[in-house]
Amino acid sequence: MTTAKRDTYTPETLLAVAVRVFNERGYDGTSMEHLSRAAGISKSSIYHHVAGKEELLRRAVSRAIDGLFRILDEPGAVRGRAVERVEYVTRRTVEVLMAELPYVTLLLRVRGNTKTERWALERRREFDQRVSALLKAAVADGDLRSDVDIRLATRLLFGMVNSLVEWYRPQPEGAAGGSGGGPEGALAADDLPGTVVRLAFEGMRSAGR
Amino acid sequence: MTTAKRDTYTPETLLAVAVRVFNERGYDGTSMEHLSRAAGISKSSIYHHVAGKEELLRRAVSRAIDGLFRILDEPGAVRGRAVERVEYVTRRTVEVLMAELPYVTLLLRVRGNTKTERWALERRREFDQRVSALLKAAVADGDLRSDVDIRLATRLLFGMVNSLVEWYRPQPEGAAGGSGGGPEGALAADDLPGTVVRLAFEGMRSAGR
Repeated sequence: MTTAKRDTYTPETLLAVAVRVFNERGYDGTSMEHLSRAAGISKSSIYHHVAGKEELLRRAVSRAIDGLFRILDEPGAVRGRAVERVEYVTRRTVEVLMAELPYVTLLLRVRGNTKTERWALERRREFDQRVSALLKAAVADGDLRSDVDIRLATRLLFGMVNSLVEWYRPQPEGAAGGSGGGPEGALAADDLPGTVVRLAFEGMRSAGR
Repeated sequence: MTTAKRDTYTPETLLAVAVRVFNERGYDGTSMEHLSRAAGISKSSIYHHVAGKEELLRRAVSRAIDGLFRILDEPGAVRGRAVERVEYVTRRTVEVLMAELPYVTLLLRVRGNTKTERWALERRREFDQRVSALLKAAVADGDLRSDVDIRLATRLLFGMVNSLVEWYRPQPEGAAGGSGGGPEGALAADDLPGTVVRLAFEGMRSAGR
């Protein structure tokens, strides 16, 4: 008999543990046994909270997906010129990635082996298409260059944005902001959402070059 | 006794099989047994070619790394203004990714659990630093914007470039070029290296906006 700690989990805190394990081992490589060990509670305690690991996956990717889709209903995404709306959505997408890093990381690694994973992939495609439509409208307005294939531009834009999950790590709680933190901290202290928008829409060349 | 096919592999063709399996199962999740089954030859036949799976990994990532580092010695990368050199290196990096897709995919997924993996990560960092130095020189020349952190710009540039391994798939042999191929084919038919350079350096906004 193993010593299990008393189950003081809420659905939210259990989810946080599950997402960490999914991201470390991969969803396919995670068993209820792994989750039980990581949480320090018995499998039956976990089943008290959720029907199984696929429910944890669904909740976790839903949190990321809901965060992303909410952006599209914000005033900045629905009013104004298409180019301003798409820049707004890009900036907010980076902010949601930073705020919900483990959840979005999991979403981006989903493979499509289960019903939940296929649903998540479908919702991701839907989000990409919404952004793609905004880019298209901005090209029609003459605000974005017309010499680049929209689908390709969408993929490259998300390639840049989504790469954050590979290298962005939040500042530890209580770490100094702008000034301290050394070279690693400096990156996180930057205006990352603003930088992504500037690079994606204005490019790296100096104005007028 | 299993029926194994006669070993007609060369080091090159055996490597191609190994890279495919590594990319499918992950390097950690691949055993010599998996390689033997995928190649259709016995484990001892594989040991006739290589000392073990780490040698296959080293050969595979070396091929990607050598392809990338060769770019830095090409005339376009060593002559001219820094901004032109870095644009050249970006274009050629995309071309090498497309040409050596499975090898670069493997390189980008390396984790650092073995000596070979740590060496590969070190070489990747070295490549990134060389590109970073070019970007810095181009900023000093006044050709690239100075309001963006160079390390951040390097990461975002590679984020965009490296995302290709997630979605770029070469045209099947004999498929029509520019005209045919349907929506999936259309992407591959585009001038992908040129598009990446245009988006990264000039951005998505129309000139003058």
